[in-house]
Amino acid sequence: MITKLGPGVEGRAVGDRVYFFGTAAGRGVGAYAEFAVCAASRLQRLPERVSFAQGAALGVPYATAHRALLGRAAAVSGETVFIHGASGGVGTAAVQIARWQGLQVIGTAGTPEGAEVVRKLGAHHVVNHREAGYLDRVRELTNGVGPAIILEMLTNVNLDNDLGLIAKKGRIVVIGNRGRIEIDPRQLMSKDSTVLGMSLWNASDAELDAIYADLGRGLEGGALVPTIGHELPLAEAVRAHELVLESGAKGKVVLIP
Amino acid sequence: MITKLGPGVEGRAVGDRVYFFGTAAGRGVGAYAEFAVCAASRLQRLPERVSFAQGAALGVPYATAHRALLGRAAAVSGETVFIHGASGGVGTAAVQIARWQGLQVIGTAGTPEGAEVVRKLGAHHVVNHREAGYLDRVRELTNGVGPAIILEMLTNVNLDNDLGLIAKKGRIVVIGNRGRIEIDPRQLMSKDSTVLGMSLWNASDAELDAIYADLGRGLEGGALVPTIGHELPLAEAVRAHELVLESGAKGKVVLIP
Repeated sequence: MITKLGPGVEGRAVGDRVYFFGTAAGRGVGAYAEFAVCAASRLQRLPERVSFAQGAALGVPYATAHRALLGRAAAVSGETVFIHGASGGVGTAAVQIARWQGLQVIGTAGTPEGAEVVRKLGAHHVVNHREAGYLDRVRELTNGVGPAIILEMLTNVNLDNDLGLIAKKGRIVVIGNRGRIEIDPRQLMSKDSTVLGMSLWNASDAELDAIYADLGRGLEGGALVPTIGHELPLAEAVRAHELVLESGAKGKVVLIP
Repeated sequence: MITKLGPGVEGRAVGDRVYFFGTAAGRGVGAYAEFAVCAASRLQRLPERVSFAQGAALGVPYATAHRALLGRAAAVSGETVFIHGASGGVGTAAVQIARWQGLQVIGTAGTPEGAEVVRKLGAHHVVNHREAGYLDRVRELTNGVGPAIILEMLTNVNLDNDLGLIAKKGRIVVIGNRGRIEIDPRQLMSKDSTVLGMSLWNASDAELDAIYADLGRGLEGGALVPTIGHELPLAEAVRAHELVLESGAKGKVVLIP
């Protein structure tokens, strides 16, 4: 909620329910706080139906999923997207955005609870990435063609398999990574496939404005409903970071001041 | 030269000087021959200024370079392209097409003779990929920014370095590869860069028609002049294959029936 306005801010008022992406740099303030400072252009109105905890889950993960799927991969209605780590913060956002845009959605989760979250979000199919042969199952689900789009949260583990799984002329978006990986580049050539690096921090202001305007539309209409996996007090921020790295995610981890 | 026309072929005549891409499949005929059979749609007129040996250098390498640079990478005038293996068949074609389209061109070669070929074709800069630190030189030549586009003929050796060298939001086109390679996918994320697989065999007929029409324009105008490195008699076809794999290329290897 806006508690104070700087000079020159138009169209905003103290008391407005808002969410934001990115605190003002160089002022010694972060977002792990009761009060935060950010540029007016980075404030987005929070619809009544969306809670503050849900608002905290919006800024980065929804914009990341939006830019990955609709910006970088340029997904179009009817295509099939395979979402690795679909029960996590970006994953749950991606499942909702993909369904909203009319895509066929296959998601992975590592636990029955995670799978249930992904299914409830609207994924057409959920596979368990801890089971041997789960990629063969994805191949079957796409009639042997492979998904047109793969959203990859753990590239250092999955990229070489993704290159084998992706459909001809398909796109793999690299959203998350924790190390190096060996790949066979010939698979890229034979399929005319594409690997797209993606970091939200590379988006231009104009791009971000368009993304948040589109997300606002989805939030107001009810198509996008942020999923909270855990709410923790600020004092347990360390535990929150552990939860993000653990498998078995089921939505976003939110800190409550 | 056309020696015989099948039924239903319009706009072509016996005696027309032509080049082609792809012999008719399944008829037991290849292109290592005095006579070959191909679909009429794959015949392209050879301008008077282009020799038959040059015509033999056209079909695959020029179309490959065209599709990589203008199709997959969607290069625009003024961008900088770094061409690995610029003295080879696809490399020489890529240098000419890039200059013709108004790009800044940096090419590599492994020998002084190869470097001379690349320079004569119009590359703004040539670096020796056998010298230590040659990628630092490319970085310098692009004012520390890195090239917007890299055409990669030996992906299994260079891809990880390419990911480090490429400019922010740059595109690397995978044209050639001879093995596996370990990469750091984080470099893709931090730069929003893109790796594009490319094989001419994945081009649609409509795409090929557009490519060859454009190449015809460049050939007639004299902007594109195929470079022949070696002409060998058909009996030495084995030696020709060795030459393609050896370093120190300086244009296309052509077999003379």
